Amino acid sequence: MIEPNFPQGDGLVPAIVQDAETKEILMLAYMNRQSWEATLRTGRATYWSRSRRSLWVKGETSGNFQLVEAIFIDCDNDTILLQVKQIGEAACHTGYKSCFYRKLDGKDFVVVGEKIFNPKEVYK
Amino acid sequence: MIEPNFPQGDGLVPAIVQDAETKEILMLAYMNRQSWEATLRTGRATYWSRSRRSLWVKGETSGNFQLVEAIFIDCDNDTILLQVKQIGEAACHTGYKSCFYRKLDGKDFVVVGEKIFNPKEVYK
Repeated sequence: MIEPNFPQGDGLVPAIVQDAETKEILMLAYMNRQSWEATLRTGRATYWSRSRRSLWVKGETSGNFQLVEAIFIDCDNDTILLQVKQIGEAACHTGYKSCFYRKLDGKDFVVVGEKIFNPKEVYK
Repeated sequence: MIEPNFPQGDGLVPAIVQDAETKEILMLAYMNRQSWEATLRTGRATYWSRSRRSLWVKGETSGNFQLVEAIFIDCDNDTILLQVKQIGEAACHTGYKSCFYRKLDGKDFVVVGEKIFNPKEVYK
């Protein structure tokens, strides 16, 4: 059975998160085996927070869960792609729809993303 | 000036590669500062090959270059998103259009991707 190669990446593999409908890239997060199994079991995207060093059910604080619609794996089994339905329309803790809300324009990045919520009102 | 946080990831940041037109995810690769600067300078996606430990101009062997149309950075400055025009229609060294050619179906992954070329004919 094919499964993500967790040992190679010190227990973690990156997961690209894509809006299932619009194909927009929402974020990149990391999964360990525990979060991978939780994602499969619950259908809600669950990651490993490298900064907090804990399991992270995306949306547990904000309510902006990610309902998993499809899962792909890459040729080397070391990256996962999740296609999700993003509850609340925003994936980024800054309130933008996508974490990739800044685009390179000449020599610097400029904000081009759509802001959905005010993080001060969501994370209290 | 905002730039990718190379020191945090031991000199590397992941780069998600997306077809600029179809929004399909083609692959995930890694960049160090040298490959980042080469990408900006040449307009051709250039990565750091972790297995070969060398600079890797995507397409240098196959001819399947990636012409960079847009570059985004995420909220933490630790992931890059490249939107590219994929020359030759295929990004994956296996001959599939995307490295994510296998989808989870029940308990295992099954091939759903489109095969564009025979790798034995391309990599001689």
